[in-house]
Amino acid sequence: MSDRVNDIKLFSLNSNPALTQEIAEYIGIEVGQCSVKRFSDEEIQIAIDETVRGYDTYVVQSTSEPGNEYLMELLITIDALKRASAKTINIVMPYYGYSRQDRKANSREPITAKLIANLLESAGASRVISVDLHAPQVQGFYNIPVDQLKANWLLADYFKQKSLSDVVVVAPENAGTARARSLANELDAPIALIDKQRTDEDFTVQGQYIIGEVEGKTAIIIDDMIDTARTVTSGALALKEFGAKEVYGCCTHGVLSEPAVERIRESELKEIVITNTIYQHEEKHDPKIISLSVASLLGEGIKRIQNNESVSSLFG
Amino acid sequence: MSDRVNDIKLFSLNSNPALTQEIAEYIGIEVGQCSVKRFSDEEIQIAIDETVRGYDTYVVQSTSEPGNEYLMELLITIDALKRASAKTINIVMPYYGYSRQDRKANSREPITAKLIANLLESAGASRVISVDLHAPQVQGFYNIPVDQLKANWLLADYFKQKSLSDVVVVAPENAGTARARSLANELDAPIALIDKQRTDEDFTVQGQYIIGEVEGKTAIIIDDMIDTARTVTSGALALKEFGAKEVYGCCTHGVLSEPAVERIRESELKEIVITNTIYQHEEKHDPKIISLSVASLLGEGIKRIQNNESVSSLFG
Amino acid sequence: MSDRVNDIKLFSLNSNPALTQEIAEYIGIEVGQCSVKRFSDEEIQIAIDETVRGYDTYVVQSTSEPGNEYLMELLITIDALKRASAKTINIVMPYYGYSRQDRKANSREPITAKLIANLLESAGASRVISVDLHAPQVQGFYNIPVDQLKANWLLADYFKQKSLSDVVVVAPENAGTARARSLANELDAPIALIDKQRTDEDFTVQGQYIIGEVEGKTAIIIDDMIDTARTVTSGALALKEFGAKEVYGCCTHGVLSEPAVERIRESELKEIVITNTIYQHEEKHDPKIISLSVASLLGEGIKRIQNNESVSSLFG
Amino acid sequence: MSDRVNDIKLFSLNSNPALTQEIAEYIGIEVGQCSVKRFSDEEIQIAIDETVRGYDTYVVQSTSEPGNEYLMELLITIDALKRASAKTINIVMPYYGYSRQDRKANSREPITAKLIANLLESAGASRVISVDLHAPQVQGFYNIPVDQLKANWLLADYFKQKSLSDVVVVAPENAGTARARSLANELDAPIALIDKQRTDEDFTVQGQYIIGEVEGKTAIIIDDMIDTARTVTSGALALKEFGAKEVYGCCTHGVLSEPAVERIRESELKEIVITNTIYQHEEKHDPKIISLSVASLLGEGIKRIQNNESVSSLFG
Amino acid sequence: MSDRVNDIKLFSLNSNPALTQEIAEYIGIEVGQCSVKRFSDEEIQIAIDETVRGYDTYVVQSTSEPGNEYLMELLITIDALKRASAKTINIVMPYYGYSRQDRKANSREPITAKLIANLLESAGASRVISVDLHAPQVQGFYNIPVDQLKANWLLADYFKQKSLSDVVVVAPENAGTARARSLANELDAPIALIDKQRTDEDFTVQGQYIIGEVEGKTAIIIDDMIDTARTVTSGALALKEFGAKEVYGCCTHGVLSEPAVERIRESELKEIVITNTIYQHEEKHDPKIISLSVASLLGEGIKRIQNNESVSSLFG
Amino acid sequence: MSDRVNDIKLFSLNSNPALTQEIAEYIGIEVGQCSVKRFSDEEIQIAIDETVRGYDTYVVQSTSEPGNEYLMELLITIDALKRASAKTINIVMPYYGYSRQDRKANSREPITAKLIANLLESAGASRVISVDLHAPQVQGFYNIPVDQLKANWLLADYFKQKSLSDVVVVAPENAGTARARSLANELDAPIALIDKQRTDEDFTVQGQYIIGEVEGKTAIIIDDMIDTARTVTSGALALKEFGAKEVYGCCTHGVLSEPAVERIRESELKEIVITNTIYQHEEKHDPKIISLSVASLLGEGIKRIQNNESVSSLFG
Repeated sequence: MSDRVNDIKLFSLNSNPALTQEIAEYIGIEVGQCSVKRFSDEEIQIAIDETVRGYDTYVVQSTSEPGNEYLMELLITIDALKRASAKTINIVMPYYGYSRQDRKANSREPITAKLIANLLESAGASRVISVDLHAPQVQGFYNIPVDQLKANWLLADYFKQKSLSDVVVVAPENAGTARARSLANELDAPIALIDKQRTDEDFTVQGQYIIGEVEGKTAIIIDDMIDTARTVTSGALALKEFGAKEVYGCCTHGVLSEPAVERIRESELKEIVITNTIYQHEEKHDPKIISLSVASLLGEGIKRIQNNESVSSLFG
Repeated sequence: MSDRVNDIKLFSLNSNPALTQEIAEYIGIEVGQCSVKRFSDEEIQIAIDETVRGYDTYVVQSTSEPGNEYLMELLITIDALKRASAKTINIVMPYYGYSRQDRKANSREPITAKLIANLLESAGASRVISVDLHAPQVQGFYNIPVDQLKANWLLADYFKQKSLSDVVVVAPENAGTARARSLANELDAPIALIDKQRTDEDFTVQGQYIIGEVEGKTAIIIDDMIDTARTVTSGALALKEFGAKEVYGCCTHGVLSEPAVERIRESELKEIVITNTIYQHEEKHDPKIISLSVASLLGEGIKRIQNNESVSSLFG
Repeated sequence: MSDRVNDIKLFSLNSNPALTQEIAEYIGIEVGQCSVKRFSDEEIQIAIDETVRGYDTYVVQSTSEPGNEYLMELLITIDALKRASAKTINIVMPYYGYSRQDRKANSREPITAKLIANLLESAGASRVISVDLHAPQVQGFYNIPVDQLKANWLLADYFKQKSLSDVVVVAPENAGTARARSLANELDAPIALIDKQRTDEDFTVQGQYIIGEVEGKTAIIIDDMIDTARTVTSGALALKEFGAKEVYGCCTHGVLSEPAVERIRESELKEIVITNTIYQHEEKHDPKIISLSVASLLGEGIKRIQNNESVSSLFG
Repeated sequence: MSDRVNDIKLFSLNSNPALTQEIAEYIGIEVGQCSVKRFSDEEIQIAIDETVRGYDTYVVQSTSEPGNEYLMELLITIDALKRASAKTINIVMPYYGYSRQDRKANSREPITAKLIANLLESAGASRVISVDLHAPQVQGFYNIPVDQLKANWLLADYFKQKSLSDVVVVAPENAGTARARSLANELDAPIALIDKQRTDEDFTVQGQYIIGEVEGKTAIIIDDMIDTARTVTSGALALKEFGAKEVYGCCTHGVLSEPAVERIRESELKEIVITNTIYQHEEKHDPKIISLSVASLLGEGIKRIQNNESVSSLFG
Repeated sequence: MSDRVNDIKLFSLNSNPALTQEIAEYIGIEVGQCSVKRFSDEEIQIAIDETVRGYDTYVVQSTSEPGNEYLMELLITIDALKRASAKTINIVMPYYGYSRQDRKANSREPITAKLIANLLESAGASRVISVDLHAPQVQGFYNIPVDQLKANWLLADYFKQKSLSDVVVVAPENAGTARARSLANELDAPIALIDKQRTDEDFTVQGQYIIGEVEGKTAIIIDDMIDTARTVTSGALALKEFGAKEVYGCCTHGVLSEPAVERIRESELKEIVITNTIYQHEEKHDPKIISLSVASLLGEGIKRIQNNESVSSLFG
Repeated sequence: MSDRVNDIKLFSLNSNPALTQEIAEYIGIEVGQCSVKRFSDEEIQIAIDETVRGYDTYVVQSTSEPGNEYLMELLITIDALKRASAKTINIVMPYYGYSRQDRKANSREPITAKLIANLLESAGASRVISVDLHAPQVQGFYNIPVDQLKANWLLADYFKQKSLSDVVVVAPENAGTARARSLANELDAPIALIDKQRTDEDFTVQGQYIIGEVEGKTAIIIDDMIDTARTVTSGALALKEFGAKEVYGCCTHGVLSEPAVERIRESELKEIVITNTIYQHEEKHDPKIISLSVASLLGEGIKRIQNNESVSSLFG
């Protein structure tokens, strides 16, 4: 292990200690001692229980639900590390909350994903490491380096191992055709698109129309995140009505807000494949939901960053 | 009404709409149309439903419990107002959450009250208006103007009207003697101090010792905020054991975390006087807890700020 | 005309004086006196020939080819206006050059669209007004307000007036399905997608495959910009081979780099509809290329911004 | 001696070369060659006579009287070090001038202690190391790390060695009860408080009233700094009139403005114990004034900071 | 008087109240109420005795000797005005101290003139107005507008009125030939140059050699400032030895450090013409030293800035 | 070779690859792999083909004609290096374009040399290394270190080797007398000055008059840069008419805009000596134009900077 890996202090906040532990094991280090407690009025109390002076610190925190709490934990920790003279403060944010609020779609809307960037930089972050950002332009919200790792190949490998025949990769709701094309390339497959139209007409399923050939095929819907699972489950229904033989869903970030799990359970979907960028509590476990680990991806990324090696090959 | 008051757009977020309404009535304007909703994954969704382009906007939000949520509502709203070209964005924060985390008391502690300042400035705030800051030095955390209004005279007036005899004003737990002296001056009274010692000894009550004359007197304990009410209720007990005739408590900010209300109800305290900088839900109402309104104080402050008049007379 | 419109000084740099003149006429003001010359070594020499002290200045400049020259003209002008005490410096950038470099697609790539944002803010810009940004996330590259106006309805109106029958709106090369869906909604039409695959196969035209129904239809390919016209012309060829009756192309920004005009001239395309966000020199004029003017859109935007009115209805 | 201590260049400006020399000896290094001279019009001329490129520089300067001159020496030196490519610029400011101007007590007051923070950060400081700040919140005026060392134990040790009997620690003029309680804990003693009231009454000494038991006791008045010594000497008089047997005074920072020394000499005080954070010129020496050295405290602090060790044990 | 002049609050600090009074009279306003006092330890205490909320404030302060004190007065006042919500804070600095430290002439030198710029901007200045900067490049040290007024024509007018015959304008010590050429143009005169060589040779006077024709002429030495007057007096001696009939000296800024007045009194110079950018104490008055007032220049500048008029004609 | 030199990655952009190669050879390293290409619309495309993570990068780029293109290449490369996590980004800018726009000479002029500084800092530059800045004050436009190397001694050495007799060093057009005096000191020579007057008179050559003795002497005109060569060639003509025996010209930066080479060829000048801070294309080669290389100067500067050694002895 190089000297520079010895300079790492890796901390976990409350969102995903299990993933942090996996990352630490991959790198071959211990998770640092720190705790996040609450004062009587629920204000966050951070305690970092070992010196960080002069160290390269890495803080693992997904800003998944409850996102505001997890974000504040992170900001306060950055402030503490900065004042404790950490050499660098590297934010490992496997899931970047508020990433969908990345533009003004209507008047007087905030661009919260940019606000998050300003808050992290203002607090004192040196770098952000994330996985599959909702829009790659989020990198440009920052003036500090942002290393975006890609979990695509985890998903591709999983489906390759299944040896599915006659696959079509499907982009949901007028977006993500580039993402679908990218997975399709890995699986040597064509793509199709779910078109969500304004008005329901005879030939649509819940206003959704399939563009492209799916009849008799194994369809894999791919998205960057699955939230309430409305899109993926109604897409699956439409695909079935358009003749698809089987439908899989996959994404990097399993947001899985209510009633996602129930919807998936009752859907036409054979399986939903996600990763562990967001920790899934027991009640969200379901045989239909397969979770792949991004720990080696993140661990390898941290090692290379720390050793000043290129991370390009992790870009997918 | 001057032209400049017409340039105000006053918005309320979720922490204290009732106080905002009172403020608006004092100024003689309507509360602006905006809403704070939640996406399916609990991310905050701000909608500002009227133009703010070129207006002096004022956003009323106490960052009381749940403080992280209320703070994020505020930051996101500031971002939205900034991008919607508001002329100025004035934060009316009657209660400033995290204000007790205003220094490094131990190694590797954050200074969260300063972090809040950085976050608000970074988001785009033009000014902060607050009431009775925990430490006046918090003003110095900012590079933008901070107008601190004082609710002291509300408390003093209340006690003057009661015509209590033989009053002593008491500072709790080795702090706040300046605040006690200030109220004592208004009431023409002496002060005393509760000394919290390291070790319990015979003559103390729960480790608390009264320094100064309280026997036969009406004691008024004053603090800037009452959180769990442990300090004020055990102080009241000690004062009684040292011979005080009656004990009142007062503060500006009624944080009242569990089990504050129960403790107050069962305590030696005759009354606790607070203000409405923090909204009190029904379950925290109690005949022993008297709430005074800071609406006219804040309304007058906003009017003077908007009309470029001095706010000094509200300082005191 | 309100007082505030009198506070405008509208300047044109070298990229598009004709559009600036049209905008000025719409607003009902004169274009300000300024000139952009060159020193003997081609360094840019800006001369602003009327006072701007205390004025709201608007500078019209598209950073189209030669983009670096036009950008430097703009940055130097902003510096001059800032030092000459202009009240606000509003950048009207109908075409935002480098907007395609908005993310790190490969290792060690710049995010030049963000760099531009940093340069403009650093020079002293107060606001950016643009038309149909390549990615709406570019708004989030800024901390100053960015008003994005939409030219979509100009294109939609044009095609509506043509009363085309059996239209299908086509998104090019695995992107822009949302933009296609938006125009399709205006024209009450279905959409299709051109899929650019890695490998040429028998049934493709230059590696392009049409997903969706186009046979016998009038296809309209829509993109945000047309650069060398390779995409749109080979798309047109593919659409024809898949049976489309007629093919139109349209976009907001006519970049039209060599050999775009020749390609268009020789293509299957019946017409290409663009706007005048980029000035087209004589040699790029062609009967097949129709240009619509964004002057009233920008003029109305400036008027509303100046009069503190909402620009939402210009969002399209 | 570790490699990293070899990277130190320690410089003294004009305020306290003697202390700098002591610190250097503690660390085991030489004081760096630099000089502060004056041009003919009294402008400051800094000459740094050895290379600092890539070094961790530490500049020792208390901003004691003449504080503005010493502050400007410091700011100009920081600018010089920054432009000479010092790796880090660490400000060792044993006494932080203007620290009492840390809040707006009245309308239109500056917060000069915060201004100092902005000036130091703006000039290019990387870190501030100070001793016993007037208010610990001053740490929050900075975005760079501030290490506050505590000289309390020096004072406590001194009094412990004296084996005084029946001690009471006294807080002066309605402030500093926490500081008094802290020293009292070390000496296992009770505390008392000097209450400065608005109006003189029969039983007070110069408007001062003692709250707490002092009769027959050895009183130690503790403050963070002693300026004109009015507070401590009139406090001593009051304590004597309330029956104290002996009165000592102590503080960290001996500001000792005119006529402090004379007042102390003629006072009831047996001794005043200070430290050498501020250099005392010959004419301020007096047998009643005992000075303790903070050199080992600061030297140890610098060593630990340089070696990335925790400084927490120096906090208290 | 326009509305906007009514928005001015003009304050004087300690360096030049007489000039401020003259400026106020020119504009037709009162000087604002403020005072600069000292605490017991010589720390500066600013009191601004009237509201500034929303006003355009102008603070007149030359940072002449004692320059560090005057600079700190200015910085603290800016902080106070900023926190008191002044609309703009305009620094009127007739003489810009430290302006000769505007480049690194040797290793590890500071660029103090730039540091001053950073400090003023960091404190919160909105604009700087100065007269005849030592190097015009100092304007580029700022990101805020800097209006440099020129006192040249005051000097030219003075000499024109004298109707001197056969004038030659002389640049001192290998610098300032452009300044000399500019005055020479006004007086329709040739120029000469004093060459300060390394080594004394036979034909030089104190190492100075005159380049150009001066025999039998009236020589006027011009510089931007006269500090110890060594340059101008030894230049006068050399000019006399090279045959000049009479020698005058002139400059904008009369720094006049010891022993300037004595040197001038005993020199070959017939007169030294200066302006009142720096206040001259009684002991520096001398019949040979003529002072012209810049009050109308600055007053007119302020009026035009306030009324958004061009100040170009004041550029000289 | 020290470890720290191994941490260098030296890149060349398009302005002067030949000089970069020479510098690399001096240091003993390879030039890094990167390329600057153009997209179809002439937008710049940077590709850095080796990892820079954690390296000290040096980018060699003169912003000579086409200066805007070369500046944009540089800014985009800085952005790419910053986002690729380079440890430091050192700009080696042998010729600093726009350096003559370093002050506001007229109303509403930009200070473009300062704008360049803001742009470079905003993009992410850590340091600038340049040669003979037009005005040394440009260093003060930066808050990052600027190392200015001096090529004077290259010129002095060249002329010393020629063993010219009876030399006079001549400053052109009322400026640069300090530069002339500096070279004159090296050559133990007197100086003269070319005075450019407003009006042509009998005894002038094209409005130029020589001040000082030149008859029968070898005159060397020195300037920092030669642009169109009008100044130096008409100066040479005037010197000849005033009796100079021979005239040489020299400068650091050979801008040589049209028609400089032709003018030089046809002029009275015997030789023009320049350096290779700006690359000269074939068509600018001429036997009268001698070019000296600054490669060892820059190479040595980089080595010392990298090894934390003083660069003072390279200051000339």
